[in-house]
Amino acid sequence: MSTARSVSFAIRRVRSPRIRTGNLRPTFQQIPRARFSTSAPTRAEESVTAAPPKQSKYTTDAYPNLKRNPNFGELTDAHVQHFKTVLNHPSAVIDGFTTDATDDIEPFNCDWMRKYRGHARLVLKPQNAQEMSEVLKYCNEHKLAVVPQGGNTGLVGGGVPVFDEIVISTARMNNIRSFDENSGVLVVDAGVILEVADKYLAERGHIFPLDLGAKGSCHIGGNVAANAGGLRLLRYGSLHGNVLGIEAVLPDGTIIEDLSTLRKNNTGYDLKQLFIGGEGTIGIVTGVSIICPQRPKAINVAFFGIESYEQALKAFLEAKGHLSEILSAFELMDGRSQELVHKVTGLKKPLDGSYPFYCLVETSGSNGEHDSEKLEGFLEHVMGESIVADGVLAQDETQAQTLWRWREGITESLSHLGGTYKYDVSIPLSELYQLVDDTRERLTKVGLVGDDESYPVREVLGYGHMGDSNLHLNVAVRQYNKEVEKMIEPWVYEWIAKRNGSISAEHGLGIAKREFIGYSKNETMIKLMSQLKKLYDPNGIMNPYKYM
Amino acid sequence: MSTARSVSFAIRRVRSPRIRTGNLRPTFQQIPRARFSTSAPTRAEESVTAAPPKQSKYTTDAYPNLKRNPNFGELTDAHVQHFKTVLNHPSAVIDGFTTDATDDIEPFNCDWMRKYRGHARLVLKPQNAQEMSEVLKYCNEHKLAVVPQGGNTGLVGGGVPVFDEIVISTARMNNIRSFDENSGVLVVDAGVILEVADKYLAERGHIFPLDLGAKGSCHIGGNVAANAGGLRLLRYGSLHGNVLGIEAVLPDGTIIEDLSTLRKNNTGYDLKQLFIGGEGTIGIVTGVSIICPQRPKAINVAFFGIESYEQALKAFLEAKGHLSEILSAFELMDGRSQELVHKVTGLKKPLDGSYPFYCLVETSGSNGEHDSEKLEGFLEHVMGESIVADGVLAQDETQAQTLWRWREGITESLSHLGGTYKYDVSIPLSELYQLVDDTRERLTKVGLVGDDESYPVREVLGYGHMGDSNLHLNVAVRQYNKEVEKMIEPWVYEWIAKRNGSISAEHGLGIAKREFIGYSKNETMIKLMSQLKKLYDPNGIMNPYKYM
Ligand SMILES: Cc1cc2nc3c(=O)[nH]c(=O)nc-3n(C[C@H](O)[C@H](O)[C@H](O)COP(=O)(O)OP(=O)(O)OC[C@H]3O[C@@H](n4cnc5c(N)ncnc54)[C@H](O)[C@@H]3O)c2cc1C
Ligand SMILES: Cc1cc2nc3c(=O)[nH]c(=O)nc-3n(C[C@H](O)[C@H](O)[C@H](O)COP(=O)(O)OP(=O)(O)OC[C@H]3O[C@@H](n4cnc5c(N)ncnc54)[C@H](O)[C@@H]3O)c2cc1C
Repeated sequence: MSTARSVSFAIRRVRSPRIRTGNLRPTFQQIPRARFSTSAPTRAEESVTAAPPKQSKYTTDAYPNLKRNPNFGELTDAHVQHFKTVLNHPSAVIDGFTTDATDDIEPFNCDWMRKYRGHARLVLKPQNAQEMSEVLKYCNEHKLAVVPQGGNTGLVGGGVPVFDEIVISTARMNNIRSFDENSGVLVVDAGVILEVADKYLAERGHIFPLDLGAKGSCHIGGNVAANAGGLRLLRYGSLHGNVLGIEAVLPDGTIIEDLSTLRKNNTGYDLKQLFIGGEGTIGIVTGVSIICPQRPKAINVAFFGIESYEQALKAFLEAKGHLSEILSAFELMDGRSQELVHKVTGLKKPLDGSYPFYCLVETSGSNGEHDSEKLEGFLEHVMGESIVADGVLAQDETQAQTLWRWREGITESLSHLGGTYKYDVSIPLSELYQLVDDTRERLTKVGLVGDDESYPVREVLGYGHMGDSNLHLNVAVRQYNKEVEKMIEPWVYEWIAKRNGSISAEHGLGIAKREFIGYSKNETMIKLMSQLKKLYDPNGIMNPYKYM
Repeated sequence: MSTARSVSFAIRRVRSPRIRTGNLRPTFQQIPRARFSTSAPTRAEESVTAAPPKQSKYTTDAYPNLKRNPNFGELTDAHVQHFKTVLNHPSAVIDGFTTDATDDIEPFNCDWMRKYRGHARLVLKPQNAQEMSEVLKYCNEHKLAVVPQGGNTGLVGGGVPVFDEIVISTARMNNIRSFDENSGVLVVDAGVILEVADKYLAERGHIFPLDLGAKGSCHIGGNVAANAGGLRLLRYGSLHGNVLGIEAVLPDGTIIEDLSTLRKNNTGYDLKQLFIGGEGTIGIVTGVSIICPQRPKAINVAFFGIESYEQALKAFLEAKGHLSEILSAFELMDGRSQELVHKVTGLKKPLDGSYPFYCLVETSGSNGEHDSEKLEGFLEHVMGESIVADGVLAQDETQAQTLWRWREGITESLSHLGGTYKYDVSIPLSELYQLVDDTRERLTKVGLVGDDESYPVREVLGYGHMGDSNLHLNVAVRQYNKEVEKMIEPWVYEWIAKRNGSISAEHGLGIAKREFIGYSKNETMIKLMSQLKKLYDPNGIMNPYKYM
């Protein structure tokens, strides 16, 4: 009998009305201090950033209406020479302008999904705010457009150029500046990789208050610029609350030094907030200070098969009630997404049967026994009342990691299918999954969905952070296809706007959503946003053709 | 034997090495669902907003250098008539301009501390965003300066006029607009009183993520405008993270409708954040949507006597370790503040002896037994290791409330002494209390502190939200006195700046701190702030003479 099976058995005992809660305690494990990581490679996924196996079109071909802004300057040898002098380090400049560096530049031109591809011929990697300031000031003076880039894991094409914008990467800004164990405040360079920071914190009994599937590649500056949400927002709250300070550079070279390490500091407008979710359109974040909670000593992960969305919603409300302060994630996955992960990764399924819905529930707390007791109460309830149909509970860290892979592996697995139209949306909980059904029905009706190569759409599936009312609708296509796109957009945005949802919950606007911002923000808001953009970036050089 | 004494005994048992933890369980109580409130009047404090018993000077006399901005218009009969027509309700206008309404207007002219007093002759109370828009637009066109006012409990003079600014009160905007039990999102008018909202939530199993001593009077709009921190920031985080949306009106009458009820909504610059802590200088908040956590089922409150600040710091770190996710408050009070509360309220002291420091520790969780066990572990440790000298543990809600009064009653008790110079500051934990000692020493050295009426300073004391590194330094004076002020300011700000602290942790800038913002924000930041102010309020009519 495999481990997973025996785990499954452990929960099935909970289902049986004859077995009382008390008996179950030994099957719940207190998982040691160390945190989960899904970065261990599995068969099909070598690394979370491995690019899908196909070549992408230029964004300029996919969006023929986009025209290069004629006000922008053109790169010259003299410009490139200037940057080389300022940055003065061989690895600080990738020069595809005066030399042939196509292969080195390609990863900076192309996004993680291979959906967007730019024509940049220069990548700059300043090492600190001062260098960043000199670079940006020069670009601004010469009206050279730029794209800030962190780990390039963004999912809306925001971090890659469209035309010949200069890529400014934070890859060489990777120092952890300080950590205070009393307060839990961490100060880092913008280019520190999320997983690196979290490992550093783990050694000091703390945890980064953000976690997501791309943690092995994404930069903290990129997370802040994208206002990433991730897997544990439910527990630790948003970056707007956790980021205490930033250091950033405006296009005119102004260095904003606002790296406060204080939890409370009511001395004026909270300017840093504009950079959180600003997607590199008003300046570049070079440093971040953030408050990090204590690392939970005990982590439990359970995985359920569920018969309907209504039951999944019930399970979530029960989890909130029973698990309360220790609930750290409640993730929803539909059956199709899990079949896909199974096919791509070859992982053994955690449950025997097949269900239309699955949920992953995580608890994190300071006392394993208490947490297990709470979880027990929850399990007893949801299984006793048949809210969930079947379930497994991780018995150790490895099993917990494996269960997480069923959730975290979806994005990566999707990328093996071809292209994906991704819609990362907020919808009131009661209707969250309806969007997936409606989309599938709409595309099926017009004959776009099918199993053989003649159909453009392979699959319509959904999953997401249920705890935050955040659904990821994914339309997996054999190749990006205008006919499919037209059937979905703007229909999908209208659907969301009707329910007062958000057309971008956590992935941001980038190039993918910029035209559709009107579905989530009214004209006044857009006017006020343009006003801010003009205030900070009057020449419009910061990440053009994106955001709005 | 009084109840308090027997409670005290219950904890003293924890100290004794002979008695094991297991025996203690029965003495820990699970406190029922209902929340604490300190609004029940005690002997000396009839209501938290009762004003101190003395008449205040006009701010224009206290700050003779302040000159009325000559660009501002002067009120005329026609203006007043216009407002009466627009608002069209007898209680919407307090007209001290064309009639004698001095008594009715006085409470709007004078702040809670009776430290600041303005010359307003008109108070307007619009009832919704539309009315607010018409009022502000008219004021802007006629360059009539205004002061937004909520519950008028602010502690930096930000909510009262200096010259003849029109007071715009949110008192008539007091509807609870909606509440969603699935998501916990509450939408309210800006004028809803904090305690009213919290009671409403209590009936629905939720809690407002902010609590403070002035809850019976302050408005949620005022809380947001002040970015209030309060007693449970440690647990629920700041308003920057919890406020999901706002409705606000700009001076030109623009209504910002951004009342999102979604937890995640990455569709552009997070403009609402500028209003959180904006202190009414760029617009008036008329509505707020906020995410509210589930109400904890179990609340425990312990109160300790501690021999030194170093031990208090140790106790805090132990509390973080042992209580982790259930720690909801850790408040520090010095012996002097507690003597004062004793003298003013006549409350019976919770502990027998006298200590230089006291701490109040609160836990909130979903399972009383688990919480008690964690608290037990904590108590055993801090008492066993003699980190704390003595302590009591509330046995029921009434006792918990009484213990909280020792913390929440300080501000009010201070107001009975005469005037208070208040410094609400953030300082790294290791040096938090040092500021109080240094201030006392400084003032004593020059002979300003003493027990009889000939000394201007009665007492120098400190308390605060230790969990947030937030100290309230209070210099209680017999009357406001320039000599004392000059000895403290700017010395106190230099002291804080040297330690990279904040000169205003949670109370804001108002008129009290505006000159000193340079100690917490550098020139670049101030320049950027002025830029924003000009952008939104080009005529400078919004809350002039304040903020910066
Ligand atoms: C497998 C996978 C899982 C994911 N899961 C989640 C998830 O659960 N939740 C979630 O919210 N997101 C998720 N994402 C997307 C998410 O936005 C990114 O992973 C991450 O936040 C972006 O960081 P990055 O460093 O890669 O930024 P990039 O992709 O490099 O850039 C993102 C945006 O920010 C800008 N930017 C980058 N750095 C800076 C800077 N220093 N200053 C100013 N602007 C800058 C870029 O111009 C771009 O507009 C996932 C992505 C992948 C591939
Ligand atoms: C006993 C006592 C205890 C306190 N404890 C705490 C504490 O623990 N933590 C803490 O942070 N503060 C505390 N405070 C001060 C705190 O700032 C206020 O109590 C509260 O947040 C202010 O709300 P209010 O409605 O009274 O605002 P007001 O005092 O009326 O106004 C405060 C500021 O906001 C502006 N303003 C008010 N309403 C609006 C609006 N709708 N739109 C735009 N601007 C507006 C005003 O112009 C002013 O600048 C305490 C005060 C008292 C008296």
